[in-house]
Amino acid sequence: MSNLIRDFNEVDRWDDEVDVLVVGLGAAGAAAALESSACGAETLILEQAGAGGGASAMSGGVIYLGGGTGLQKACGFEDSEEAMFDYLMASVGLGADRGKIRLYCESSLEHYDWLCQQGVPFKQTFYHGTSGEPPTDDGLVWSGAEQAKPFCDLARPAPRGHVPQIENQGGPMLMKKLCEAVDRSPARLAANHRCSALYQQPDGTIRGVAARTFGEERRILVRGGVILTTGGFVLNDKMLEEHAPLALRCNMRVAGTGDDGSGIQLGVAAGASTIHMSSISISLPITQPWGLKRGILINAQGQRFINEDSYYGRLGEASLLHNDGRSWLIVDDEIFEKPEHIDIIAAVGKSHEELEAELGLPEQSLTSTLATYNQYAEAGRDPFFNKRSEYLKPILKPPFGAFDCTTENALYAVFTLGGMRSDCDGRILDPLGDPIPGLFGAGRSTSGISVGGYSSGLSLGDGSLFGRRAGRMASKVE
Amino acid sequence: MSNLIRDFNEVDRWDDEVDVLVVGLGAAGAAAALESSACGAETLILEQAGAGGGASAMSGGVIYLGGGTGLQKACGFEDSEEAMFDYLMASVGLGADRGKIRLYCESSLEHYDWLCQQGVPFKQTFYHGTSGEPPTDDGLVWSGAEQAKPFCDLARPAPRGHVPQIENQGGPMLMKKLCEAVDRSPARLAANHRCSALYQQPDGTIRGVAARTFGEERRILVRGGVILTTGGFVLNDKMLEEHAPLALRCNMRVAGTGDDGSGIQLGVAAGASTIHMSSISISLPITQPWGLKRGILINAQGQRFINEDSYYGRLGEASLLHNDGRSWLIVDDEIFEKPEHIDIIAAVGKSHEELEAELGLPEQSLTSTLATYNQYAEAGRDPFFNKRSEYLKPILKPPFGAFDCTTENALYAVFTLGGMRSDCDGRILDPLGDPIPGLFGAGRSTSGISVGGYSSGLSLGDGSLFGRRAGRMASKVE
Repeated sequence: MSNLIRDFNEVDRWDDEVDVLVVGLGAAGAAAALESSACGAETLILEQAGAGGGASAMSGGVIYLGGGTGLQKACGFEDSEEAMFDYLMASVGLGADRGKIRLYCESSLEHYDWLCQQGVPFKQTFYHGTSGEPPTDDGLVWSGAEQAKPFCDLARPAPRGHVPQIENQGGPMLMKKLCEAVDRSPARLAANHRCSALYQQPDGTIRGVAARTFGEERRILVRGGVILTTGGFVLNDKMLEEHAPLALRCNMRVAGTGDDGSGIQLGVAAGASTIHMSSISISLPITQPWGLKRGILINAQGQRFINEDSYYGRLGEASLLHNDGRSWLIVDDEIFEKPEHIDIIAAVGKSHEELEAELGLPEQSLTSTLATYNQYAEAGRDPFFNKRSEYLKPILKPPFGAFDCTTENALYAVFTLGGMRSDCDGRILDPLGDPIPGLFGAGRSTSGISVGGYSSGLSLGDGSLFGRRAGRMASKVE
Repeated sequence: MSNLIRDFNEVDRWDDEVDVLVVGLGAAGAAAALESSACGAETLILEQAGAGGGASAMSGGVIYLGGGTGLQKACGFEDSEEAMFDYLMASVGLGADRGKIRLYCESSLEHYDWLCQQGVPFKQTFYHGTSGEPPTDDGLVWSGAEQAKPFCDLARPAPRGHVPQIENQGGPMLMKKLCEAVDRSPARLAANHRCSALYQQPDGTIRGVAARTFGEERRILVRGGVILTTGGFVLNDKMLEEHAPLALRCNMRVAGTGDDGSGIQLGVAAGASTIHMSSISISLPITQPWGLKRGILINAQGQRFINEDSYYGRLGEASLLHNDGRSWLIVDDEIFEKPEHIDIIAAVGKSHEELEAELGLPEQSLTSTLATYNQYAEAGRDPFFNKRSEYLKPILKPPFGAFDCTTENALYAVFTLGGMRSDCDGRILDPLGDPIPGLFGAGRSTSGISVGGYSSGLSLGDGSLFGRRAGRMASKVE
């Protein structure tokens, strides 16, 4: 038998006994524990670190919510459940779970209110000009590609990035508030406990866990359900190699210390199906400030490959997954300003030809791309990739420059999106789609809303929402 | 408990009892059964169809072998284990299993001899000008991108496609001979038997299977090992959606009736790890005859994206995975000839401009690409993608034509490459890399040599080689 699974019937004495056991105290785990406690289930949380937070507390804190939340209304934006649904269906990747997305959109207003009730503060103000966490304490931001083609034609755009109030990085504030709510709840927290194995009955039901703490092992009987909210696997090189090897080329892994795939491995050992394991979110934040969207992004053949005004997550996907992580942002003197996240200028030239040569590109590669682009930009059009006219400007004023957007030199921030297959109530499913009794999951240990195309805030969003649902369902189980 | 896994201890009476049970009689299953029988293990093969063959018998029959086989030598080609290893390491995709590839190359000579000993005939002649199965009964062909850049610079090229002797399609001949060998062996075949569940002991060991045959269920105790050689999952739409959704856009699924993922599902339910599940082989055979390699392949922006002289599997991957399955092969009157696998001419024009307009491309997209390409081709160079000079010819002679290579209208032949993680002896591994006792696999139910980039013959090759090793290992188990 796998070292991750043990025979339930071989345990004589249990060290503890609970209704619901939550593994991991990030946003998903906190949400699960808060709901299971609220349902009256005796709840224990195991957290391998000394305190809660996880990857959620390392994040920007953006939560993707919409449909007309209080915050959206306060900032003067109209939104609808349908528009949110249409945007997500168009943007989150092929093979997405339509049922989960529908429920996510339907529940969004209520979920925003619930977060407020837990004490998470959202300043009722909007910050323009960033794609993700704002440098201010404003509460609402654009956090996806809603305004860019083709999405703006498919769904009425609205900003849906909800950010807890604090300057610069909302993640710590989000988790501070959620952990405080957990502290106020009847749920118990066992910090410095790492779940090392699941106990399974001969009929397949998960009925307990083994946890390691300071070299000792404790065995905990679980009457209701075990909820795995252990995060993704971006820190596990072996798993990345087997599922998403290009992630290994990214120089920033967005993770807490727990994103080592351990929860997914526990689930797999118990017979769980995993899906979309190759999907990763890749941010390439090279168009901050947004004026840089007026540049053009080219590959190693000097060709454009995306509308540069799109969300930086889409730029990252296009560059890494489809252009070998070799790209450059071309600007002229008018566009030039200091990017927030690029340090290296790969080449400068007094003419298009000189820039092309400095970049080592074949003659007539970049120059030809620029000639065509400029001619259309002059007319306010981009028939190739449909960049919006406000970002179309002929690149004519010397000197010309190329910002280095290769994986070697630019910030590529990555995390994993694939995980265990779960249903809308957090039940973990086997290969036939049947639940594994007693086993639940939420957050990035499971496959969620995004299965390819990302928008900021989807992971905190689906982790906390489906975490809550898993908490309720697990506390119902006998 | 999953319907796929049952408690071994609940069975009172077994209908049959064997040392080794092989599930599926394709090339991998035949190889496994032949070796386990040869080791003296009482072997039973379950085949869900009325007779053996599986996807192997529907294939072109190409087997990727090298290092200086008898056939390569007879045809006057030099090859070495190192050259084969270097080519595979460079071409089969990121995250490949180096140990498996090394062993595959080391064992290639012996494996060729073994196939001959089983009665598989290889005519000692070479057929030039195709990438895959020849239209003749010749035995040796080019079956990958060995001669194209960048591979020809990384490893000395040699043709490694070994094809059983018969006109047009070697797969049926291969399986006829392997099934005859199985008939001669002591192994028993139970046709019309579908494996529906595995019996697992409380310690995790697989010790039996349930099989359905004509509405009845039979329970078979397995003393040694169960070997799953059930093929891939290209016929399972749900699994494709969850792992490789772009495969659903391909109009030809390369499969036997068994490639429904059932064996992978059995393994996963037993706690097996699956890897590289998003990897698919995609053939876009648009450059047959090879004279068409002188055309240029463009995407929806009129841009080239690959050296057109590469293997058609690489063309398919580049077109579907990186260019949205929207591509066209541009030719002039000199290059024009009837392709073997394209039926539709998307546009014709008397000039580059007219062809561009007919294709509905933006002005100066295709024309600009052609101008640059032609200028370099005239000089015998392709600094963009390094197509070899023998296929470089300016595209100048009207009329000009565009063959339709979109997923809507061209042949895209797909099959899955991902599957259970196995070691070099066919042991199926759990998430920690530990073997699941009693469970083995080979062929496309497992992840093999190719995890992304394909060459014809790798699946029959690794399926039969690692099938043999699994057969030997399973027969050793008590």
